Amino acid sequence: MPYYIGDVIKDSKNLIARTPEKFEEKGVSVELNVCVEGIETDRGKILLADGRRLSYDTLVIGTGAKATLPDIPGTTRDGAFTLKNLRDGINIKEYIKRNRCRRAVIVGAGFIAMEMSEALRNLSLETSVVYRGELPVKNWDPVFSEVVLAELVNNGVSFIAHNSPVAVEKGSDARLCLVTDKGKIETDIIIFALGVRPETKLARETGLETGESGAIQVDSSQRTSREEIFAVGDCCESYHRVSKKWVNIPLGDIANKQGRVAGRNIAGYPMIFPGVVGAQSFKVFGLEVAMTGLDEKTAEKSGYSPAGIIIWGTPVARSMSGGQRLGLKMIADKGSGKLLGAQAVGHSGAVSRINILSACLWSGMGLDEIGYMDLAYSPPFGGAWDVIHTVAQVLEKKL
Amino acid sequence: MPYYIGDVIKDSKNLIARTPEKFEEKGVSVELNVCVEGIETDRGKILLADGRRLSYDTLVIGTGAKATLPDIPGTTRDGAFTLKNLRDGINIKEYIKRNRCRRAVIVGAGFIAMEMSEALRNLSLETSVVYRGELPVKNWDPVFSEVVLAELVNNGVSFIAHNSPVAVEKGSDARLCLVTDKGKIETDIIIFALGVRPETKLARETGLETGESGAIQVDSSQRTSREEIFAVGDCCESYHRVSKKWVNIPLGDIANKQGRVAGRNIAGYPMIFPGVVGAQSFKVFGLEVAMTGLDEKTAEKSGYSPAGIIIWGTPVARSMSGGQRLGLKMIADKGSGKLLGAQAVGHSGAVSRINILSACLWSGMGLDEIGYMDLAYSPPFGGAWDVIHTVAQVLEKKL
Repeated sequence: MPYYIGDVIKDSKNLIARTPEKFEEKGVSVELNVCVEGIETDRGKILLADGRRLSYDTLVIGTGAKATLPDIPGTTRDGAFTLKNLRDGINIKEYIKRNRCRRAVIVGAGFIAMEMSEALRNLSLETSVVYRGELPVKNWDPVFSEVVLAELVNNGVSFIAHNSPVAVEKGSDARLCLVTDKGKIETDIIIFALGVRPETKLARETGLETGESGAIQVDSSQRTSREEIFAVGDCCESYHRVSKKWVNIPLGDIANKQGRVAGRNIAGYPMIFPGVVGAQSFKVFGLEVAMTGLDEKTAEKSGYSPAGIIIWGTPVARSMSGGQRLGLKMIADKGSGKLLGAQAVGHSGAVSRINILSACLWSGMGLDEIGYMDLAYSPPFGGAWDVIHTVAQVLEKKL
Repeated sequence: MPYYIGDVIKDSKNLIARTPEKFEEKGVSVELNVCVEGIETDRGKILLADGRRLSYDTLVIGTGAKATLPDIPGTTRDGAFTLKNLRDGINIKEYIKRNRCRRAVIVGAGFIAMEMSEALRNLSLETSVVYRGELPVKNWDPVFSEVVLAELVNNGVSFIAHNSPVAVEKGSDARLCLVTDKGKIETDIIIFALGVRPETKLARETGLETGESGAIQVDSSQRTSREEIFAVGDCCESYHRVSKKWVNIPLGDIANKQGRVAGRNIAGYPMIFPGVVGAQSFKVFGLEVAMTGLDEKTAEKSGYSPAGIIIWGTPVARSMSGGQRLGLKMIADKGSGKLLGAQAVGHSGAVSRINILSACLWSGMGLDEIGYMDLAYSPPFGGAWDVIHTVAQVLEKKL
C-alpha cells in the first residue's frame, strides 16, 4: 500500500488539506507531522521519529529545499523569518497583524526578496531591502538590475546596498534591530530571503550520491544511485539542455514535472524527464523580470564562447507603445551561432518573449532562424519586426 | 541608379512621407503617383503610364494585395469603402467626421472586420457586422468564434448573420442602405472587409508564373520565374513550413522579412527566406485571438491525419486568475505526434501562447516535448503546469 509522509498535503485546489481523507479514499496511507529519521536500504524500511518502521519496495524522496539562514546571532528571535512554504507565509502574515508591524526588513535581493518587498508594501509596511552587493537580482545583467532597483524605489522600497547582516537584536523603538557591518536598522519584522539549498540530509545519510550542485543525483527517470529510490523536486538535480550539466534549479514547475515522471516510471509506464533550459520569471510591482538559458559566465564554464547584447525595444508596435520599453538581452555562441540564453525586463511583454526563446532553446535553434521566425504579428502585441527578431539579427552580426 | 515607384513612401518613423528627399539623399530616384503599365522583359524596361520608360537590371515587384469588393451594384457610392492602406483609413475617418456619421455597417467577419468594429465603436458609431455565415472569424474553431461573437455583442456591436449583400442604395433616413438577401439596413457608412487578393495583374501580363494560391511564384531567395525579377510581400507566395506548400498569407511581418531577403540577394549577400508557420493574431475590444500552423481541414489537405482538442485553462495561475479563462486548441498529427497548429482566445495570454507554439512549430516539435517543455513559471504569468502543457499532454493521449 502506498504511503504519503509529509507535513502538509496540497489538494487539487491548492489549499492545505490537513485531513488526509482524500488520499486514503484512493488507497494511500497518509502520515502527517512525523519525521523520517532514517532509511534502512538493506531491509527496505524507513524509520520514523516515533520509532515505527514502514516497509517499501519503491521509495520517493521529495525533501525539497531549505531556506538559508546567515550564521549570525539572533536569527531565531521572534519576528525573524525565512520563507520556504505556505506555513511560513501564514506565520508572517499573522505576526504582522498581531504585532501591528509598521516596518519590515528583507535581507537578500533575489527574486523571493523582490516578491516579498511587493507583498509587504501592499500591507503598507515601510520596507527596506538590505543586501551585501550593489544591485538586486544579481543573476540578471546589471543593466536590468538597475531597472529592478528603480521599480523598488518608485514603489517606496528602500534598497540598502553593501550591508551584510551581523546580528539580530532587540530593537529600541521597534521590536527588532538588524545590525549590519555598516550600521543598525530598527524594524518590526525581518525576512531572510537568502535563497535555498537542497535538503539532502536524509539522502546523504542513506548513502545516495549527490552531484556537484549539492543536490541528489538522479537519472532521466528520476532514479537515484539506488535503483529502488527515486528523488524529485528541489532536493534533486535536473539535466540542463543548454549547459549539458546536471543542475539544481528549485522551482515548482520542475518539481511537478519530475513528480509525474517518477510516478509513471514506478507504475510501469516508462517516461524520461527531458530536462530544463533554466526558464524563470518573477513579478515585482508592475515589472516583469525573466530569463532563460545561460548567462555569459555560466556559458563559458560550459565550454561555449558566448557573446551577448541588450537592445531596448517595445512590447507592442512602437506607435501603440506609449513610450513603454522592453529590454531584451540574448547570449549566443560565437562558434555555432546557437542561442544560449536570454533575459528580459519590462512592464509588459518580458515573460512572453522569454517563453518564446525558451522554446527556441529547447529545440537548439540558432540566431539565423530566430531572426526570421514567424510570430503572430499584430500591432497591439508586437511590431512587424519583434524585439526578438532585432536582437537575434544584431547579435548574429556581432558574432 | 535604383528607382522606387509607388504611391506613398513610409519613412523610418512609419509616417507617410510624401516628399521623397530622404530616399534621394541616399541615391534612390523616387517616382510617386505614377502607374507602371507594363514590363518589357526583353528590353529590360518598365513602361510608365505617362509614356516614359525606365531601365532596370533587377526589378522588385511589391504590388501588394487588393481588397475584395462584392460584385453588386452601388459599391462605388460615396460612403462605401474598402480598407487596404493608410489612405483608406484616413478617408474613412474624414468621411465619418465630415458627414457626422452615426451608423456603420461592416460587411464581412474576418479579422479586419473585427478590428474595424472596435475602431468604429470607439468613434461612438452604432456598428453592425453583416455576414453571410453563422459566426465571425471562420478560420478559428467555432467554439472560439462564439467567444469572439460574445465580445462583439458585449461591446455593443450587432452581428447580423446569414445575410449576403445584394446592393448598396441611397438610404431613406440614413445616407446609405445596404440591401441584403434578407432585408435592408440603413447606415451612414459601409466598410467592405471581405479579405484581399494578391495584386498580380502586372506580373501575369509579364508572363511571370503564379502559384495555386493565385500569388506570384517565388523561390526562397524571392526570385520569380524570371531570374532578374523578384517579388515580395502580399503579392507573392511564401513557403509554409508545416503544410510544405507555397501559400499566400498577406501580413506585414512576412512582407518586411521578404523585402529584406530580396534586398540582400540583389546586393550580393545571399540569404533565404525560411518560410512561415501561419502565425497571426488580432485584438477585438478586450479579446486576444491568435492562431498558428494548420487547422484540421488544411492539415488533411496536406496529407496529415490531424486530431485536435480544446481545453480551457487560465492565463495566469488559477489562484490569481479571478475567473479569467484562456481557451487553447492544439492540432497534431496522429502518425508522428508532431504539432500541426494551435488556436487561442482569451482576454490575456492568448497571443503569448500562440507565439510559444509558433516557435515549437518552427522547429517541428512533437507533443511529447511540448508537454514537458520548460517555461518561465511564476504564478502571475502562468501555472506550474501551463495550459500549453495540459493541452499537449491530453492531446497526446488522444492520438
